[in-house]
Amino acid sequence: MKAFVLSALVAASLMAGSLASDAHKAGLKPIPDTKKALLKLTSNPANPTTCAKVELGKILYMDPRLSKSGLISCNSCHNVGLGGSDGMSSAVGHKWTSNPHGLSSPTVYNAVFYSQQFWDGRSPHLEDQAQGPIQAGPEMAAPKEHVTDVINSIPQYVAMFKQAYGKTVNITFEKIADTIAVFERTLVTPSRYDDFLNGDKTALTKAEQKGLKTFIDKGCTTCHNGIALGGTMQAFGVTAPYKHMDVGDFKGDKNGLVRVPTLRNITQTAPYFHNGQIATLSEAIQEMGRIQLGITLSDAETASIETFLKALDGRKPEIIYPMFPASNPTTPKINVN
Amino acid sequence: MKAFVLSALVAASLMAGSLASDAHKAGLKPIPDTKKALLKLTSNPANPTTCAKVELGKILYMDPRLSKSGLISCNSCHNVGLGGSDGMSSAVGHKWTSNPHGLSSPTVYNAVFYSQQFWDGRSPHLEDQAQGPIQAGPEMAAPKEHVTDVINSIPQYVAMFKQAYGKTVNITFEKIADTIAVFERTLVTPSRYDDFLNGDKTALTKAEQKGLKTFIDKGCTTCHNGIALGGTMQAFGVTAPYKHMDVGDFKGDKNGLVRVPTLRNITQTAPYFHNGQIATLSEAIQEMGRIQLGITLSDAETASIETFLKALDGRKPEIIYPMFPASNPTTPKINVN
Repeated sequence: MKAFVLSALVAASLMAGSLASDAHKAGLKPIPDTKKALLKLTSNPANPTTCAKVELGKILYMDPRLSKSGLISCNSCHNVGLGGSDGMSSAVGHKWTSNPHGLSSPTVYNAVFYSQQFWDGRSPHLEDQAQGPIQAGPEMAAPKEHVTDVINSIPQYVAMFKQAYGKTVNITFEKIADTIAVFERTLVTPSRYDDFLNGDKTALTKAEQKGLKTFIDKGCTTCHNGIALGGTMQAFGVTAPYKHMDVGDFKGDKNGLVRVPTLRNITQTAPYFHNGQIATLSEAIQEMGRIQLGITLSDAETASIETFLKALDGRKPEIIYPMFPASNPTTPKINVN
Repeated sequence: MKAFVLSALVAASLMAGSLASDAHKAGLKPIPDTKKALLKLTSNPANPTTCAKVELGKILYMDPRLSKSGLISCNSCHNVGLGGSDGMSSAVGHKWTSNPHGLSSPTVYNAVFYSQQFWDGRSPHLEDQAQGPIQAGPEMAAPKEHVTDVINSIPQYVAMFKQAYGKTVNITFEKIADTIAVFERTLVTPSRYDDFLNGDKTALTKAEQKGLKTFIDKGCTTCHNGIALGGTMQAFGVTAPYKHMDVGDFKGDKNGLVRVPTLRNITQTAPYFHNGQIATLSEAIQEMGRIQLGITLSDAETASIETFLKALDGRKPEIIYPMFPASNPTTPKINVN
């Protein structure tokens, strides 16, 4: 009996080992399990990650005074407590304006692992991306000068920038966005899936391992690969048109390609797809099979993939809510109009 | 020389002791300096403070899904990082609606020490107050049933309520508001001023002590007294009408009385007065002298009082940003209209 249990364990372990190997072959990669490797991977050589920048970037990310109205922060639409998004089908910003293209807010978690930012991939990295929503009229609606004037008017912010970048720092709009990006680069969420790929063969249950196998075997990894299980530009509606394509006018980039969203923390970022028209994970999985792979996934296969996807819920960094340095009479007035 | 220094120290100490005594006589009271005394003072016997309720209350306070739109939380207008308010002259809520009476958001910090809540004092305590903005059309705009349906649809929230109140808990709208209030009851900010009144004679600088004396001698403590240095209902515009009374239609309660705002953390809660029409603390101090005390405060007296008021900036509780339990397909849909 003992021998049987032992050999079953060995077999399970071998299966797990082989599955991890299959995952690697399919292009899936774990979040590194050492701080050093993770820092090397996520730090931008042109703007290296430091503790002072991360802390300042966090405060800026959360501060609604970076918006024209003083009401909207990066965290309003990319809420770190709501899976890094806002739970809306179409983002709402300045003056209660819905996104003009009907686009939802992608999660900020693990966005550092994307090759491109925004749904149409028009931005190469987070430093560039962070400049967009702050200025965009339907989002935070703040002209560059407003943002730099606000920050430069607050002595404690100036002191924090000096601490982060040296005494001669010029606090430009780009520097502010760079600092926000450094914080965002720390928003990675290792999960049991990563533990599994990093060698802990018991980190995923058998049902989750089976789901991962189904995920690979069915071809989901064609697009959902890399560390983010997404993040590259891919054709959308390959074998059939997306059933809610008529909601909003988004058609992808100039070649019709769409940036693949990460599957990490996917249970926390409904509703799904670029225009947030799919409410449940099972429907999203089946629609993907239909329009990207040309297959009909059975209920059992769908459930199995869903079981795996739930194991991608990650461990979030602890974020202490910032006490923002106070405005003063020289701080530009907020303007809700 | 030594004797002179010693006698100067003794004299300063006597002066400080006498000032603290004058402050007590003028109705000023410190935040207690022991956890036990503070808990006794801030806990509601009908809904006693417990760790489980505080933690749950914090999550609810920060969760924008308590609003109809899913975009606005208690923290949107009573931002714990912005002195417990929003920096706006008139609060903005659902569908970008400004407060119809032109009223600003009072700070949540130390509101537990108020005898009445809201600018017109219509609410007796935080448990009652918390029910208002969640439902108010221009604020969070959520019907009671929406809020209870959202919370009851999320198993992790239900589990947290059971942990806080026992397995048979009925998660009503009132219970949700009660829980938010328990969290708010912990938002107190002891300052060097409290240390001084609690016996540390060196906690305030001489200039701050002088400012406190001016504050008392000029009669500011007539209204700004108690632990909150405010929080009771008082006549407004006693000796002259407020110069911005025409902005908004607020006229106080049925007797024309207005709830006196706390002076704690006052440097962080500009713009000032119920309609946020005064940008600077010095102007606010002078206007108060003119319309409440019928005196013209000199620049030196104004500056001295301001120096004291700055010492009311308090130590904030550390707040770890919550990871909200995820919505699911049974959670009521958010509605931005």
